[in-house]
Order: sequence, then structure tokens, then C-alpha cells
Amino acid sequence: MTLRIGIIGTGAIGTDHARRINRVLSGAEVTAVTDVNRDSAEACGGRGPGAQILGSAEEVIAASDAVLVCSWGTAHETQVLAAIAAGKPCFCEKPLATEAYGARRIVEAEEAMGRRLVQVGFMRRYDRGYVALKETVRTRLGPPLMIHAAHRNPSVPGRYRTPMAIHDTLIHEIDVLRWLLDDEYVSAQVIFPRATRHTHAGLRDPQIVLLETAKGVRIDVEIFVNCRYGYDIQCEVVGEEGTARLPEPTAIPTRLGAVFGQPILMDWKDRFIDSYDVELQDFLKAAAQGTAAGPSAWDGYAAAITADVCVQAQERPGAILPVTLPARPALYA
Amino acid sequence: MTLRIGIIGTGAIGTDHARRINRVLSGAEVTAVTDVNRDSAEACGGRGPGAQILGSAEEVIAASDAVLVCSWGTAHETQVLAAIAAGKPCFCEKPLATEAYGARRIVEAEEAMGRRLVQVGFMRRYDRGYVALKETVRTRLGPPLMIHAAHRNPSVPGRYRTPMAIHDTLIHEIDVLRWLLDDEYVSAQVIFPRATRHTHAGLRDPQIVLLETAKGVRIDVEIFVNCRYGYDIQCEVVGEEGTARLPEPTAIPTRLGAVFGQPILMDWKDRFIDSYDVELQDFLKAAAQGTAAGPSAWDGYAAAITADVCVQAQERPGAILPVTLPARPALYA
Amino acid sequence: MTLRIGIIGTGAIGTDHARRINRVLSGAEVTAVTDVNRDSAEACGGRGPGAQILGSAEEVIAASDAVLVCSWGTAHETQVLAAIAAGKPCFCEKPLATEAYGARRIVEAEEAMGRRLVQVGFMRRYDRGYVALKETVRTRLGPPLMIHAAHRNPSVPGRYRTPMAIHDTLIHEIDVLRWLLDDEYVSAQVIFPRATRHTHAGLRDPQIVLLETAKGVRIDVEIFVNCRYGYDIQCEVVGEEGTARLPEPTAIPTRLGAVFGQPILMDWKDRFIDSYDVELQDFLKAAAQGTAAGPSAWDGYAAAITADVCVQAQERPGAILPVTLPARPALYA
Amino acid sequence: MTLRIGIIGTGAIGTDHARRINRVLSGAEVTAVTDVNRDSAEACGGRGPGAQILGSAEEVIAASDAVLVCSWGTAHETQVLAAIAAGKPCFCEKPLATEAYGARRIVEAEEAMGRRLVQVGFMRRYDRGYVALKETVRTRLGPPLMIHAAHRNPSVPGRYRTPMAIHDTLIHEIDVLRWLLDDEYVSAQVIFPRATRHTHAGLRDPQIVLLETAKGVRIDVEIFVNCRYGYDIQCEVVGEEGTARLPEPTAIPTRLGAVFGQPILMDWKDRFIDSYDVELQDFLKAAAQGTAAGPSAWDGYAAAITADVCVQAQERPGAILPVTLPARPALYA
Repeated sequence: MTLRIGIIGTGAIGTDHARRINRVLSGAEVTAVTDVNRDSAEACGGRGPGAQILGSAEEVIAASDAVLVCSWGTAHETQVLAAIAAGKPCFCEKPLATEAYGARRIVEAEEAMGRRLVQVGFMRRYDRGYVALKETVRTRLGPPLMIHAAHRNPSVPGRYRTPMAIHDTLIHEIDVLRWLLDDEYVSAQVIFPRATRHTHAGLRDPQIVLLETAKGVRIDVEIFVNCRYGYDIQCEVVGEEGTARLPEPTAIPTRLGAVFGQPILMDWKDRFIDSYDVELQDFLKAAAQGTAAGPSAWDGYAAAITADVCVQAQERPGAILPVTLPARPALYA
Repeated sequence: MTLRIGIIGTGAIGTDHARRINRVLSGAEVTAVTDVNRDSAEACGGRGPGAQILGSAEEVIAASDAVLVCSWGTAHETQVLAAIAAGKPCFCEKPLATEAYGARRIVEAEEAMGRRLVQVGFMRRYDRGYVALKETVRTRLGPPLMIHAAHRNPSVPGRYRTPMAIHDTLIHEIDVLRWLLDDEYVSAQVIFPRATRHTHAGLRDPQIVLLETAKGVRIDVEIFVNCRYGYDIQCEVVGEEGTARLPEPTAIPTRLGAVFGQPILMDWKDRFIDSYDVELQDFLKAAAQGTAAGPSAWDGYAAAITADVCVQAQERPGAILPVTLPARPALYA
Repeated sequence: MTLRIGIIGTGAIGTDHARRINRVLSGAEVTAVTDVNRDSAEACGGRGPGAQILGSAEEVIAASDAVLVCSWGTAHETQVLAAIAAGKPCFCEKPLATEAYGARRIVEAEEAMGRRLVQVGFMRRYDRGYVALKETVRTRLGPPLMIHAAHRNPSVPGRYRTPMAIHDTLIHEIDVLRWLLDDEYVSAQVIFPRATRHTHAGLRDPQIVLLETAKGVRIDVEIFVNCRYGYDIQCEVVGEEGTARLPEPTAIPTRLGAVFGQPILMDWKDRFIDSYDVELQDFLKAAAQGTAAGPSAWDGYAAAITADVCVQAQERPGAILPVTLPARPALYA
Repeated sequence: MTLRIGIIGTGAIGTDHARRINRVLSGAEVTAVTDVNRDSAEACGGRGPGAQILGSAEEVIAASDAVLVCSWGTAHETQVLAAIAAGKPCFCEKPLATEAYGARRIVEAEEAMGRRLVQVGFMRRYDRGYVALKETVRTRLGPPLMIHAAHRNPSVPGRYRTPMAIHDTLIHEIDVLRWLLDDEYVSAQVIFPRATRHTHAGLRDPQIVLLETAKGVRIDVEIFVNCRYGYDIQCEVVGEEGTARLPEPTAIPTRLGAVFGQPILMDWKDRFIDSYDVELQDFLKAAAQGTAAGPSAWDGYAAAITADVCVQAQERPGAILPVTLPARPALYA
């Protein structure tokens, strides 16, 4: 029995998910798509021959067993709430909502339904490296005490501003480290090193974000979005018995021209490319049971709250600000 | 349009391929299975609800759009020939035939049909590491001059004998290095180092096989099947401008107990596990067009001839024996 | 012309330096030694046949061309001042003085003499790895923006208390990072992660020290002195164009028992062992000219001031405290 | 008591050893030098103020406690024999003699004296990496079964011809692997891969030399003297329980320009530079006792015999030729 998938938003990521469902993954087919720009929906290469082009998110939700929300961030909240209201499993690309308050409404709607219906697109949790790192931390390091992390991009577009280092960049570490540690954040601090000359007045770059968890783990994350040399994600966990690191992406070691080296990725899209397949297969599997698994609306909400505090911390460099999360509802225990 | 796949032989690998087609890959469904042991066919967990259990390979071929030959090696030749006769794309696990002569008959049958129908299960060609290595060799090393390779298993069962180091173990290097270099073998030599105490009278272990190609590339492959420490595949290509290596499998680097290290796989089944998905997806894609791609019957034949010479070379340690391949038919150009 | 060296203090390090001068290095000989414990001086194995045992530091200074101060830290200031007064080059093991104020007096005495006479035993500046790192930073990274460092010991004695993490441990990073960057500290912050269970009430372990330099470089140093797994010094410099790391100590990579790894040192004494030879040879070379080179009294003073602020910062976790250094005298420009 | 050292031959290596003895090492002084070119002797920068320039090797031997033979290879035999006749410890740069027969005469002369007086300049035995590798092999690998080695130079001068790949290049592996294994060679085979375009008619490059030892260990050494990318010495030992490799030279890992890499040395002189200090200090230590340690005349002789067989093997590619060594005299047991 093939699951009928509706896709809301046929931009780059929506189109890629359509291709993934129709040509890579098993058990589902894209049967309906919509986009605010109908030309985009018609041009959506991967949607497959059997997909109708519909006029609204609501129609897509009605016509599908489960939906993927890949529209602009500002539309997410309404569309996810509509899917929940229809009782349809819903995969929502990040952000779940543009404000923590919107994520909160989604959590409440889902709670009211009494079962999980939403998966947020935090794909790093499905990355083989992070999965193996979590297992190593759990089994071999003893209690974790610190994490040293870095999130580096070779460059960013001119419209990228200081707070985007949190909302667009750090957001991945916020979610994945919380998951890795199975812990919650309690404070955040931002410090600004000397700025690289490769940035501009609207963007403090690099930044260091210091997070503290409920169990006392201390995390430092370097965010450096004009680092020039590559897209590079580093994560070292220090536990009572030793350390473990996220592995480097697979690359060919060469000896050429007086250098023993291996290539570093330059395009972030290549870094976690495999995990998109895995996260979506996980969504399809749960959706076939009428529910959702993986990163939850609660996780999206927790990330949103933390991100908001980090942005406030950017405005008061050096100040240590509390991160306060409401009690976790039983649905997400 | 879903491709109907028949599986001949429902042992471990047939069962795993059934699961793969039904639950992982896109575009196909297992619709018929058979096994000499009907209980095995019935127990085949991954075959899916829609798969009929049939009494013979012929029936499976008749009832399917394409077939997977996963039976015992001795049955391969007849079953592949039957699939070719029926004009059905056929994925055959290695060996294509138990003797080079049988592989030859398959090549001739396929030639007579005038189109490729057979893919041989040399999955390493689909391994991401080898694919990237080939690309690096092609673009950055200049003409290749040498390959230093190793194929190490922690241990082998007692029934594993000296010639199996060629037919069961080296066979993978024979195929993948030929593909990597786009070259043919012209001679082979085997030398026997001091034997490990972890072997027995029926198995010379380790062995070193020296291969020479038509272009003059020299290859040394260490085969060490009781190496104790892990399943480890090494490959270094030396070209005119530098060297490139097969990457280590992704693993978590740790610092624990006075060691900075990372785990080595112990089970060969884990080493190329991803490449099974890729090879079979490639088969499904070509089969949907009524043909086959990837490692061909000719490749299976070339590997069989080379392996036979290597076994002869085991019997005359130190002697350099010629490897002679007939002219390559146009179908495989 | 062989330089006559006097050694004040014949404990472990004094004895080792005596051996070094007499048997490893060129151009000098130990001719006089003293120790508050005369038995120790007599037992000093490496002092050589020509060394007299004298009754006081003053006599040693008088009888030598240059001296090594290897006594207890509390005696350093007086002995170094005596050497300066006598116009004799003086190598002083760290700390230069037990309080910044004492270091200040030494700086003033040296300034009054108008030439450098003191080298402080910050041996890391002579470590091949740090020297190469500094050169790489200078030539290839662009302006440095951040340093991520770690100083880990497998364990410490029970008498080691929280402030010793600064005075005995961080002191090396304080000096070597200042030298690496050619920059001065302007602020310090200490944060305490969850404590390891391998510590006790008198020692907060691990700690993270955040330092800021005049040029805006941000440094985070993890100090973890009961890390269990090894003695491990990490240093990564992030510049505008890329990053560079301190190399791992040379070790044999092995593949054994399902692990691809290399040993980590357990004893700190092995980590910078080569640099002792180099620093002392540098001292002898300058001493033969009647002066001193390498880490100066000013460097010792700057390190002492910074360490004092870090200890205050330990007492106010999270607070960012200013580090204020007087103007640098011309002698140390 | 300072050892009086005479240096015979003040070319690049003689001059460097003079500097080493006078300015780096302990316990000796250069007191006499000679060179066939008196201008060279006078220009010898490192010889020190106390060194007389004498007219012949014999005079230098007479005037010194121990001598260093750093003249042209053709003069070594006579000069070493003269030192032995005078009962003076003698460090001889490789080769000990230009023909195995000459090395034999030195062995016999030393035997007649009844004590070791000669150390041959096989400095790799003093390299920290090889020393640690030998210890790891001895303690952790179980009996060694195979060695995979490579000796690569970026380029060689035009006068470098095929046999020099043995006499000038492989000679180091011949000695150090024999020492590493504590074993003797019994056969040799040479095979020639496709030649690099960066060579010429007089030089087959690369080459692969296969050596067999008395205990059955099989060694393959790639010699590639126009490999372009760097001076690179590789050595992997495979034992019954696992493998161990020679470490890479210490280098700074960087992330720059889409590459995670570290520099490779281009100049062979930098690769084992530290080991010259260690080998000569070892010579001085033994010479102070009137004898010699380290690589012996017997080792030089064994290397010469093996090298001669390898050159014969170059002339009969593929043929396996026996290496036959006389019984080892008791002096070298």
C-alpha cells in the first residue's frame, strides 16, 4: 500500500524531497503538490506523473495521507496547524514557526490531538556520524562534561545578518547537541572575537556561543560563516573517561604537490545529503502508522526558545542569559 | 509503473535483496520467489505480501520483469542463461559461473541477444570510496603506475582453503582494480610469506598476489584472511603525480585509555553495506529499460579467467604466469 | 671556552638539567651546585666530576659564569635578583616569583642593569610543534581570530587545588599563546562545567578559561586535570583564511584488536622533553655572550599578572575581569 | 675529558658533522681535519678554532682519538682499514666500501683486532620513528610476516641511473629493515612497473624490489625517485596480531583552501635530520670507551652483498635470485 504524499511548496527543497520520495525511497508516492507560484509547481521536476497540482495547502492536505511543508518559513505555522487539524502526519522543514510562540501553538494543537503528527526537519539527527557519536558518548565516555563545536561556512550572501548566525546556522547545533546529550539548555552567552575582514558591518563574524545545560554540560560553539576554506562541522564531546569527535566526511586522502591532504566540502548541501534520505524514510515509516517520529514539535519549540535567547545574548555580549523552557508535556516524554 | 522482480534463491543474500527492493529502494516490488528449499522461500521475511512462491527458476523468470539470481554458485550459469533466453534483465550474485568456461557461455548468449541483460554482483564498484578514488585517479594523479592493496579478514571458517583466497576473496580486487584502472591483466604471480600460526595446513595465509596490466601497472595485493584485528580493505594508487588511497570507513575517533583511535570493522558484511543499495538501484533503473548496466557478464568472465590463473600461480609460487583474455566483444566495448 | 654553570637546587629538574649540560649539550659544564639539602646536592647524579658543592646560592653565583635557578618557587625571586646583581645570566624555572609583585621587582632590577640576564623556563616556546604552528599562523592563516585549546592531565595528586589549575597548569598556555599571537591579554573569564566524579571537593575539574587579547582574539582553554585517558595538549588557531593545529606527538599507528589507533602519552614529562634541550642550549648560547634570550622576566611578569586575574575569575564564575599590564619597558620591546 | 675527533673529508656531510660535534653534541671536539682539496678543509666552517688542517688521512688518524670518514666512497675502504690498524674508533659514512669484497676486508681486519671499531652511517636506525616501530613490532604485533615499504624522492639528478636506485636509495631500506626484523635476506626479485614520463632512458623508475628473509618475511619496497610530490618514506609491518606503521614526520595540520592537509617534506636532508645527532652521539659514547656500537662493519657488508644481488635482479626482471651471506663472525653475534 503506497502512501500518498502531498508537498506544500515546490522550491529547491520541496522539489528535492519530491524526487526523493518518487525515485529513491520506498513505500510512498507524491500525489499532490502546491506552491504559491503555480509555475514553480508545474516545473517541479521530481513530482512524478501521478501528482496533481492543487491550488492550496488545504487541498493538498485533504488529498494526501501525509504532507511535507516546504514553503516559506512564514507559512509553516498555519500549514502545520492545518495538517494537525486534519489528523495528517506532517513533515515540516525548519523553522517550525518563525517565532517560539508559533511553535508553542503547534505543540498545543498536537497535544490536543493526543498523538504525534509532526516531524521537524532537523536532519542532523539522522546523520550517520552524529548517530555513531551519540552511541559512543552513551556507551564509552562516561557522563559528558563539555562539547567543543564549530559550524563554519566558506561564505554567506550579503543579506545574511548577525541574528541569522543563530536562526539559520546555530539552530542545527541547538537541536542536535540537545539530542546528543539528552539534556536541556539553561543559559546562553555570546562573545564576539575580532571580526574577519571578509564580513561587513551588518554581520559580526565569527561568533562564539556558550551554552549551559541542566546537567551542567558546557558547550562552546564557534560560528564562522565567512571562514573561506570550507563548510566544516566539528563536534568534540569530552566525558569523564575520554573524548569522541564527529568524523570528517569521507574523502580521498592524496599525496600531491608537497601536501598530504584530503578535500573539504565547500557546499553545505553536500554535508548531510545522506541524512535527508534517512529522515524522510523515517517520516514515511511513521506516517504509514498515522503518526510521526524523530524531531518533534516540542524539539522545534525548544530550539526556537533557545535561539531567541541567543539572539538576545548577541545584543548583550558577555552577559549570561537564562534559557527557560516550560514543563515538557507528557506526549513528548 | 512498478517493476516485478523475481528472486531465485532465498538464502541470506536473496532475503536481504528482497527486503531492499520492497522496503528501501524505489520502483520495484518482489512478486515471485523460489528456492530449492521451499521452507526457505516461505520463511523469506522480506519478500513482501505480494510475492508468490514458485517451484522453479523458470517459473520465476516467466512471472517477472527482471530477476535476481541468488542461488548456490553451481546453479548460476543455467539460471542466468534461462533469463537471457527469456530476454529478462538478470542480476547475478558472484560468481557468474563456477568456471570461466561457463561465464564464456553466458557472454556468448548475451552477445547473441544483442543487448546487455546481465549485471554481476561486484558491489565494490558502487562503493562511494572506490567511486571517489577512481575519480581522483582519473583527474589528479596522472597515469597510474602501481597499486598497493590489502584484503584482510579477522578469520575464516575451517573449510576455507588456499584457492578460496582467490575465488572468494581476491575476486573482489580482481574486478574492482580492473575497473578502477580501466585496464586488463596480463600476468599473475603468487608468493607466500611466512604463515601465521592462526592458520592450518589447508590454508596458506597470508599470500601476496602480484598482477600486471596491459598498460604496465603493477599491483600487489596482500590477502590475509586470519589477520585477527579486523576486516580491512586497503588500496593505494600511485600515479605519475602522486598517490591516492581508499578512505577508511567512517568511524568515531576517540581518546580513551591512553589511545587515540577509531574502531575497525570486524564483520565484512558491514564494510560495503551501502553499496548493495546502490548496485541494486542501478540494476532496477536499467531493468526498467529492459537492459542491464554496471559490471557485465564480460567482467565476470574476465574475473574468472584471471582468478583461474591466480590459482595456478598459487601452485607454482614465484612463477609469473600469463593471463590471456579473448578479444572483447563489441557489446562490451 | 667552556661556560661554567652553577645550579641552585638539585631536585629532579636541577639534576636533569645538570645531566643535560654535561652530557647532551655543547659548550658548558656544571662547575658548582648547591641545595638546601646538602645530601641532595651530593647525590645529584648528573652534576659531573668537576662540580663543587657549595653552601649557598650566592657562592654558586660567584663561582659561575651563569646559573640555573631550580630551587623551590619561594626562593626564586631572591636568587634571581642576586644573579642579576652579580651581572650573571640566569635561567629560572617557572615561576619567576610566587607573586606578580616579585616578578615586577626582577623586571625592574634587570631594567636597571640595562641588559637582559634572565630567561624563564617556559619551554613550550622551544617545542618544535609550537614553533612550526607559529610559523604557519604567521605565513598562511591571515590574522588570527580565535584559539581553541585544551590542557589535559590523566590525574593530579590530592594536594592539587582549584587555583593550581591556573598557576601550575594554565600558566603554560598563558605564556605560549601570548607568544604565539604576539599579543597581550585584556580580559579573563572562568566557567565551571559539571565536575568529573574523579575529582574532590577542593578541586573544580574541569574548568574553561576564556581569554581575550588586545587585538580581539578570543581564546578558550579547557583545563581538565583528571581526564583519565592521557596527557594531551591541544591547540587550534582559527585565522581569517583557515585553521592550523598543534601536531600530535609522534606515535606509531597500529591496527590491533579492532582498533586503528596510536598511543597517547600518560606522563607530562614526556610531552615536551625535547624542548628542554633546546631551551637550555638557547640559554647557553646567549649566556656565552653575557646576556639572555628566550622568555624574559617581562614574560614571566605578564604571565603572573594574567594568572592572578584568572584565579580571581575562578572565584567569580562567569564574570569577565580585566587584565591590566603596565607599559612594556624598552628593554623588552 | 674531551674526545679528540679527526674528520677525513670536509664536503657537505663532513662539515655538518664537524658543526655537530663542536656545537651540538657533548664530550668531543674536532681537532684535526683533512680533505683532498685543501681549500675545502680550510673553508670547513664548523671545524672549530682548535682543529689543525693536516695533509692526509693517516695524519688525522694519528692525531685523533677517533675519526669520521666522510670522504668520497672510493676512499672509504683504505681509510677505514687504516683507522682499524691504528686501533682508533671510526665512523664511516655509507658505503663502507664500493664493493662487497672491500667491506669483507674491513670485517676481517676488525675481527683480527678482536673488537669493534667501526660504525657505519646508517642513520635510520637512530630515527625515533623506526626505533618506536621496532619496539612496537617486538612487543605488540606477534611475529612479523610482511613489510610494505616505499622510498620516494621528488626527483633525482640526470646522472642518477637504474642501479643507483639500489646503491643510493634502497640501501637504507636494506639495512634498516634487516635491523627492524633482526633477520637476514635470502632472496631478491625486481619488477619494473610502467615508467613515469618524468624519467629518462637511463633510469627505470619506479621499481619494486621484493625481498625474502630467512624467517620467511616478505618485503615489498617501492622505489620511486621521480615521484614529484615529496620525499616520502613509508613502512608498514604486518604481524600475526596486527600492523604498525612508521609515523609521518611531524607537520602542522591545516584547513585552508578546501583542503585538510599537512605539508610533505621535499628535501630528503630534512627527513632524518635528528637521527644524525643521535647516531654521532652514540659513536662518541662508544669511542670514549675505545670501541664502536650501532651499525657494524658486518651490517655494511651484509647490505653490500644484498645490494649486489638486487642490482643483478634489476638485470633479470622477475627472476628470484638467492642472497647468500657467509656465517656471521662471533664478533658480530
